[in-house]
Amino acid sequence: MTNTELKTENLIAGEYTSGTGTPFHSVNPATGEDLSGDFRNAAEADVNRAMEGAAEAARRLRSIPPSERAGFLRTIAEEIEALGDTLVERATAETGLPAGRIQGERGRTCGQLRLFASVIEEGSWVDARIDRAIPDRQPLPKPDIRRMLMPLGPVVVFAASNFPLAFSTAGGDTASALAAGCPVVVKAHRAHPGTSSLVAGAIHRAAIRTSMPAGIFSHLHGPGSVIGIALVKHPLTEAVGFTGSRHAGMILHQTAAARPKPIPVFAEMGSINPVFLLGNTLAGDPQGLAAAYCQSVNLGVGQFCTNPGLLVAPQGSHLDAFEREAAKLFNETPKGTMLTGAIAKSYHEGLRDLEKSGVVRRLSNDGECEGAHACSALLATTAENFLKTELLHEEVFGPSSLIVSCRDRGEMMAVGEHLEGQLTATIHGTDKDLAEHCDLVDTLSTRVGRIIFNGWPTGVEVCPSMNHGGPFPASTDPRYTSVGTAAILRFARPISYQNWPSSALPPALRDENKGGITRMVDGVLTRD
Amino acid sequence: MTNTELKTENLIAGEYTSGTGTPFHSVNPATGEDLSGDFRNAAEADVNRAMEGAAEAARRLRSIPPSERAGFLRTIAEEIEALGDTLVERATAETGLPAGRIQGERGRTCGQLRLFASVIEEGSWVDARIDRAIPDRQPLPKPDIRRMLMPLGPVVVFAASNFPLAFSTAGGDTASALAAGCPVVVKAHRAHPGTSSLVAGAIHRAAIRTSMPAGIFSHLHGPGSVIGIALVKHPLTEAVGFTGSRHAGMILHQTAAARPKPIPVFAEMGSINPVFLLGNTLAGDPQGLAAAYCQSVNLGVGQFCTNPGLLVAPQGSHLDAFEREAAKLFNETPKGTMLTGAIAKSYHEGLRDLEKSGVVRRLSNDGECEGAHACSALLATTAENFLKTELLHEEVFGPSSLIVSCRDRGEMMAVGEHLEGQLTATIHGTDKDLAEHCDLVDTLSTRVGRIIFNGWPTGVEVCPSMNHGGPFPASTDPRYTSVGTAAILRFARPISYQNWPSSALPPALRDENKGGITRMVDGVLTRD
Repeated sequence: MTNTELKTENLIAGEYTSGTGTPFHSVNPATGEDLSGDFRNAAEADVNRAMEGAAEAARRLRSIPPSERAGFLRTIAEEIEALGDTLVERATAETGLPAGRIQGERGRTCGQLRLFASVIEEGSWVDARIDRAIPDRQPLPKPDIRRMLMPLGPVVVFAASNFPLAFSTAGGDTASALAAGCPVVVKAHRAHPGTSSLVAGAIHRAAIRTSMPAGIFSHLHGPGSVIGIALVKHPLTEAVGFTGSRHAGMILHQTAAARPKPIPVFAEMGSINPVFLLGNTLAGDPQGLAAAYCQSVNLGVGQFCTNPGLLVAPQGSHLDAFEREAAKLFNETPKGTMLTGAIAKSYHEGLRDLEKSGVVRRLSNDGECEGAHACSALLATTAENFLKTELLHEEVFGPSSLIVSCRDRGEMMAVGEHLEGQLTATIHGTDKDLAEHCDLVDTLSTRVGRIIFNGWPTGVEVCPSMNHGGPFPASTDPRYTSVGTAAILRFARPISYQNWPSSALPPALRDENKGGITRMVDGVLTRD
Repeated sequence: MTNTELKTENLIAGEYTSGTGTPFHSVNPATGEDLSGDFRNAAEADVNRAMEGAAEAARRLRSIPPSERAGFLRTIAEEIEALGDTLVERATAETGLPAGRIQGERGRTCGQLRLFASVIEEGSWVDARIDRAIPDRQPLPKPDIRRMLMPLGPVVVFAASNFPLAFSTAGGDTASALAAGCPVVVKAHRAHPGTSSLVAGAIHRAAIRTSMPAGIFSHLHGPGSVIGIALVKHPLTEAVGFTGSRHAGMILHQTAAARPKPIPVFAEMGSINPVFLLGNTLAGDPQGLAAAYCQSVNLGVGQFCTNPGLLVAPQGSHLDAFEREAAKLFNETPKGTMLTGAIAKSYHEGLRDLEKSGVVRRLSNDGECEGAHACSALLATTAENFLKTELLHEEVFGPSSLIVSCRDRGEMMAVGEHLEGQLTATIHGTDKDLAEHCDLVDTLSTRVGRIIFNGWPTGVEVCPSMNHGGPFPASTDPRYTSVGTAAILRFARPISYQNWPSSALPPALRDENKGGITRMVDGVLTRD
C-alpha cells in the first residue's frame, strides 16, 4: 500500500481486520456530500484482541529504553507529515475546518509528539527519589529505598471531534500515554474516520520502522455506546483519556467507576470559560475589546473547549456601547460550518432553549442556518437572571456567548461564586482592579484550571506550565492536565524498590545516574 | 480544662458539641472491661456544620503562608507529646497494643507532622513551572504561563484502627492534608474514641495557639455507615483518606463515584504481601529465615497492612525443614490481643474458612483463643491448589500466613501472575537468582507498590521515596502513596496563571523566587 492509501479496516495490534455490520461513511459537513471510504465497526471480539495485544505490548515495553520510545514518537510525527496534502484534504473535507487550521493543527500535533519525545529522553519526569540506607540508625536500621514512576499499562483514548488531529488519533492523549510507556487503543471518532485512519496508518508504519511491539497501537471504529463502553469495561484497560461532552464523559466515568477494578478516566468535558471585565475596563478601548471577544468566540466556529461562553461586566453606558459594537461584529461574522450536522443542530437547539427561558435578550441578528452551518449569536442577560436560571450556566457548544450585566461588585462576586468548575476564567482590568477584586480572583481560582489576565482563553499553549483541565464538571480529575508535558503524569504510578541490588534497578534509580536526570536524593534535588 | 482531660463531645470547627443518641464507650480488648468516657455520635447536622466550617477555613487558609501552616503542624506534635503518659495509657487500654509500641507510634506520628512542616517550609513540593513570554514568536506570541499546585479543599479522613496514632486522628492522612493547605474533618474510629479525642484536643489547642481558622479541624464520632457516608456525600468534601478493609474502602469509593460531583477517595485496603524465596535461598539459613518470617507475621499481632500473608517457595526437603522450624516458632509465639473482639472474631473465621476449603494444611497448633485474643497460625498449600482456590488469595487480617509450595519455576511464575494488586512483594535470593527470575520480578512490579529484596515488608519508612499504596485492590488509586512526603500530592491540584502581573501571583511563582524553591523555568529545573 502507498502511505496515503485510505484503509477502511480496523487496525488491531498491527493487523488490518475487516469490521462487521453495515458500512458507514463520513460526510462533508460543508456540502452534505458523502465522502469515500466504507468503514465498518469493530466487533466486540476485536476489542478483546486489541486489549490483549496492548497488554502484551505493555509487558514488552517495560524493557525497551525511553530513547527508543522517543524515536517512535518522532517517527510518528515524520509519518504524519509524510501524509502531506492527502491528510489536509481529508481532514478539511471531514470537518469543515479550513486547510490553514488543519495545517496549524498538524504542526501542533507533530510538535507535541516531538515535545514528549524530548521529555522522556531527558528523563526527569519519572520523579526519581532515592533515600540511602543508614545501617546503624537507632532504634532500627534505615533501608535503601528508591522510587520512580512506571507506566500504568494499556490506555484507551477516545478521539475528539473538535481537534481532528491534536486531540484525536495521535493527539495529546495518545502522545502522552505512549511517552509514559503505555500502549494505546484509540476509539476513532465517527465524524472523521478517514482522517483518523490516515493517522493510524502513520502510527502503524512508525511502529514497524522503530520495531515497537505490534500491540502498542490499535485503532477501532464503532459507536461509543458499544465499542467505547466495551473498551472502558475491558479488564486489561488501565486508564481512559477523553475530550468531549459532559454527557458522554460522565457515562465513561460511571462505567469505569462500576468496574470490579476501578480505573482513572481523564475526561475533559469543556466549560463556559467566563470572562470578567473589572472596573473601568470598558471605558478604555471598547472597540478593541469587542473585536477580540468576537474573534475568540468565533474561532473555529466556536468549537474550542476554551471558548468564552460568558462575559461578565458592570452595567452602564460603556457596556451598552460594547454590546452594540460586539453585536455588529457578530452580525458581520460569516456563517460557519460546524463539525457535523448533529453538532450544529444541538447548537441551535441550545440557543433556542436559552431564548425560551425568557430571561435572555438576543443582541445579534437571528440568522438562518441549515445543515451543519451555524450563525454566531450574542445574547445578554442580567446577573439577577443568571443567578436564578441554571440553564444559563450550561455550555452551548458553538459560536455564541452570553453577556451578563451586573449592577454592582456584589453581583459580580455572586456570579463568580455561582459558577461550576471551569477550564479557564479570564479577567480584564488594571493591576489595581485586580488588587481590589482579590476576593473574586480567589473565588475563581478555586473553580478553574487556568486563569488569564487581559487576554482570551482560546489558544492553549503546549508547554510544561500549561494546565488544561479543572474542577468538575470541566474535568473528572482536576489533578491532571490533558495539554502540556505534565499530561504524561496521568498514565504513570510510583513503585518503590527496597534494598534492591543496583544491577537489578531500572537505570533511573542506579547510583551512577547515567542519564543525568534530576532526582531527589536524601531529600535534596540533584543531578548527581 | 487541663490538656489531658478526656472530652467526650464532638469537636466541630473549634467548638465542643454534645452528640446525640445513646452514649457508647470503648472496651479494653485485653480484659473486656469498659473504659471511662461516654461518647455520643455526631448528628447529621453536625456533619454539615463541620464541612461548612472546613470550607470557610479552606478559603482563609489560601492567604495564610506555608510557614504558618508549618508552625501549626509542629505545634500539633508538641501538643501530642505534652499529653504524655495519659495518651499512652489510654491508647494501650483501647487497643491492646503494648506501651512501647504506642510510644514508638507517637514518635512516628510527631516525626511525620514535623517532616511535612519541613516539606512545606522548603516549598518545592508545589511543582512550580514557569514558561516566560516570547512576544515576538511566530505565528503567534507566546504568553507568560506559570503553574503550581494548590490545595483541593476540605478533606475527610477516616481514622484507622490498626495505627491508633500514626494512621488515625493526627496520622499521615491528616498531616499531609493539612500540609497541603486542606482543612480536615476526622471520622473517629469507634475502637479508640478516647485516644482519638485526646489527639483531637491536641490539634484543637495547636490551632488556637497558631491562630488557625477554627474550621481547619473537626472531629466526629459516629458509625461509618451513617456519619462516614454523610461526610463522603457532603457537597463541600473534596477528597477522602481511608485505611482499612476492602469492604469498607469500596463502599466509600462507590459512594464518592456516585456523587453528582465525583471526588477522589484514597483508600488503602491492605493486601497479602507475598514473599518469594528463589533458588536455593532456603539452603542457606533456614532457621534465620524462619525466625525473621515468624517475627514479621506476628509483629503487632499481625495487624499491619504489610503483613506477609503469603510465602512462596520451591518444594523439597529445605522447605520441609523451614516449615518445621517456622511451625515451632509460631507455636512458641504467645497469644496476642487484637485491636477489638470483632477483629479477632473475623480473624478466626477467616482461618476456619481457609481450613474448610480442604486444600490447606495447618502447620502450627490449633490454639484456643477467646475474646480479642488471637493465636498465630501457619498454614500451607500447594501452588496447584492456590491457583485454583480464590479464597486463598484473600487477606486474613491477623497473625497468620500461608506457605505455597511450588513444584517448579513455572508454578512460581503462575502464582505471581495470578496475584491481585498488592502493597508489597518481597524476594529472597542472591543477585544471580534475581537476574534469573527477571520475568517474575517484572510481573510482580506490575502488581505492587513496593518491592523488597532480602527483607520483610513490615516496617514502612516515612521518607520521600516511600510508596505505600499499590494497584487495586491494595488501594483505589495506585498513583498515590499514603506514607512518605509524596502523600501530600493527593490533596493538591494544578492551576495555571496566564499573563498574570507579578504582584498578584502567589509567591512561589514570582520571578524573584524569594523562597529559593526548585522550579521548572522554560523547561529547566532551577532554584534561580
